[in-house]
Amino acid sequence: MTGKRMLHLNAFLMSTGHHEASWRLPESDPAANTDVRHYVELARTAERGRLDSVFFADSPALFSDVGRRPAGSLEPTVLLAAMAMATERVGLIATASTTYNEPYNLARRFASLDHLSGGRAGWNVVTTATLDAARNFNLDELPGHRERYRRAEEFVEVSAKLWDSWDDDAVLADKDAGRWGDAARVHPVEHAGRHFSVAGALNLPRSPQGRPVLVQAGSSEDGRDFAARHAEAVFTAQQTLADAQDFYADLKNRARRFGRDPALVKVLPGIVPVIGGTEAEALALERELDELIRPEYARDQLARTLRVAPSDLPLDGQLPADLPDEDEIEGAKSRYTLIVTLARRERLTVRELIGRLGGGRGHRTFTGTPDQVAAALEEWADAGAADGFNVMPPVLPSGLDVFVDQVVPLLQDRGRFRRDYDGTTLRDHYGLPRPTPVRVPLDGSLDDSQEIA
Amino acid sequence: MTGKRMLHLNAFLMSTGHHEASWRLPESDPAANTDVRHYVELARTAERGRLDSVFFADSPALFSDVGRRPAGSLEPTVLLAAMAMATERVGLIATASTTYNEPYNLARRFASLDHLSGGRAGWNVVTTATLDAARNFNLDELPGHRERYRRAEEFVEVSAKLWDSWDDDAVLADKDAGRWGDAARVHPVEHAGRHFSVAGALNLPRSPQGRPVLVQAGSSEDGRDFAARHAEAVFTAQQTLADAQDFYADLKNRARRFGRDPALVKVLPGIVPVIGGTEAEALALERELDELIRPEYARDQLARTLRVAPSDLPLDGQLPADLPDEDEIEGAKSRYTLIVTLARRERLTVRELIGRLGGGRGHRTFTGTPDQVAAALEEWADAGAADGFNVMPPVLPSGLDVFVDQVVPLLQDRGRFRRDYDGTTLRDHYGLPRPTPVRVPLDGSLDDSQEIA
Repeated sequence: MTGKRMLHLNAFLMSTGHHEASWRLPESDPAANTDVRHYVELARTAERGRLDSVFFADSPALFSDVGRRPAGSLEPTVLLAAMAMATERVGLIATASTTYNEPYNLARRFASLDHLSGGRAGWNVVTTATLDAARNFNLDELPGHRERYRRAEEFVEVSAKLWDSWDDDAVLADKDAGRWGDAARVHPVEHAGRHFSVAGALNLPRSPQGRPVLVQAGSSEDGRDFAARHAEAVFTAQQTLADAQDFYADLKNRARRFGRDPALVKVLPGIVPVIGGTEAEALALERELDELIRPEYARDQLARTLRVAPSDLPLDGQLPADLPDEDEIEGAKSRYTLIVTLARRERLTVRELIGRLGGGRGHRTFTGTPDQVAAALEEWADAGAADGFNVMPPVLPSGLDVFVDQVVPLLQDRGRFRRDYDGTTLRDHYGLPRPTPVRVPLDGSLDDSQEIA
Repeated sequence: MTGKRMLHLNAFLMSTGHHEASWRLPESDPAANTDVRHYVELARTAERGRLDSVFFADSPALFSDVGRRPAGSLEPTVLLAAMAMATERVGLIATASTTYNEPYNLARRFASLDHLSGGRAGWNVVTTATLDAARNFNLDELPGHRERYRRAEEFVEVSAKLWDSWDDDAVLADKDAGRWGDAARVHPVEHAGRHFSVAGALNLPRSPQGRPVLVQAGSSEDGRDFAARHAEAVFTAQQTLADAQDFYADLKNRARRFGRDPALVKVLPGIVPVIGGTEAEALALERELDELIRPEYARDQLARTLRVAPSDLPLDGQLPADLPDEDEIEGAKSRYTLIVTLARRERLTVRELIGRLGGGRGHRTFTGTPDQVAAALEEWADAGAADGFNVMPPVLPSGLDVFVDQVVPLLQDRGRFRRDYDGTTLRDHYGLPRPTPVRVPLDGSLDDSQEIA
């Protein structure tokens, strides 16, 4: 046993990689975003490296200029079900929106994924911050930030009731007596709230993990409170060690204030590892990628994020002085603030800012040798900035291969990372307990009169 | 080449089989309903038999008394994604509700399944006829039958627009020029209708089949019209050859009236094959299963379907004379009528009716040797009652094994069934064309101003 903090590692998967120009490299397959075999190989690589989990972001809208980079993606719960069949241990975390789903459907899909993966499902709970998505779901405007989080609170509450609606021992399988299940151990949720009315029990016995691991990734005030109340793992974008330390301490404190054990809320900053055999090789790879960015695409997107015209963003000038406050943003608040803060703090030109965002969309880039990257991860962990990392390879599959084959062994040698899985479920990997069903007093029997043949 | 009609065969999968007591047999695994390995084996068996497809029914509610039989099921789109990875050719048809989903989410899941299976996805479109489901989605009452079908019409229309929103050649993958896709070949759907407003294009390039195969299974007036307008395959429950002939002719006529080629609407009655080495063995298996039914469970469910009290249904008496007309039923109209017609025509006691429904829920049972079953299928096909069959084994996996290993070879020998797959997609198997995108005149470019970074 070592006194050192063991890290948790999640692989954030995205088509040809997180660098927006990665698809232009000779090695990259531009059709990777719709190719299940690409993702199956990535999941196997993550499992070879004994990573805790793989993860997909998601939004129910076509989010980027299709000229710029691979656009569109396979729906994550469906894709991860396929990937589950090709792996045995690695966790499988899908993003899904509480604003544009119904709890009964989504709770069931995650319980299904948990069953068929043998207890490896996780849900990254998002409220979906784009007008594009709203306009695909009968709305003309993006629902307000606060309102989206209120709905998310109730959505997670109802989902937990559904996941807990079957006792773990509800299935009797008594062939002799002809009793398959015990209706007294299946509990209709009878939820009647502000956003949702859900009467019945889930149409699925309780899953191996009881509930999927809950993940959260928004860093606004509302987002942090939501994470502190519900999340078991938090993905976050932090540019500097000091910012990451502040975020880490703040989130753990919030969790404590909500009565939770802060050790059961794992904080994983996103990091983009740009790795070379020498530092010079790593820097050359970074430069090669940055030179493949087409700045006009990126400037258009930056202008939309900042609510200004592209002509207000000359490539070799700095950001305009009179940008809106975060309070005025109803979309992705924490992302907005991260970009503006980064540009102002480092006095970046628009062109430089685009380069920094294009590499990892505002996440921290570590460029160097495997040893340098491993040391940087250790430093952040020791400085109270991270329980682990959300690893965002700039190029896929090669960037995950090099991380798994060259960085992970160093972390293992330093006693920072498991050499093999201790358990079988995602909760096992993150050291999280299996939730016991919460029972609101009820009469305890299914109301059969509500069923129709 | 033979002039005989080649059959289409779909395997309707359900936990331990379609007979409600199948789970009580010594050979059955009572946990099969949550075991992906069980379903993977069934899909492989179907593929070994060169069947067109496998299929799951579904409802977003806990539908049966949990004491009676295996209750709850893995969500079909997620489950079929897993099964896709273990098979290469067999089609994968999932049921999903138009009443309790949003088109953007569901169209995307089916397109995702189509991508990751290499073009094998099918969607059984249902409107979901139970109050139980309504009460899981914020409603106190079941929406009316007509209203559900109106929503289904628009749901399918929007879904088709989404599946067609990317031209087949929209992905350029031009690394040199730095142009991944051509925005002029990606078309926002801009749908604004009675039930849905959906602005954007799908967030996924067009899938191998263009659109999943559309299947329909309701046989009410509204259901038949819906099928005649949209369905490419129709699953139906018909007890007698005469009824099946009437249904077949009626559906083909309706399709013709809607301007469609009736040959492109495949009609597949459900059949429950109870197969033995001799007729006596088959009858013994049927009797063994029927004797394992607990009639009190089945009577409670029958009472709910018929809107009467269980005490109105003495096991050895006939159905009450004063049951409601189909017009008064807002739930599953055609199922209601099928049950009442069956009981009255054959003057069945409640106990006898329960036996008939317990074996296949009102679908036609063929009990006999493989030769007798194959002959019965040929007879229905030659008599203009079927383009193929929805095969509902009473016991799984053994009932599918015996069908594939003993009935299919006879159909092949008689020139009624393929000896190998001719193509790779579900459309190939059913002889259906790949749809060309329908283009409403538009300005043809993505409205970038709607995107937010």
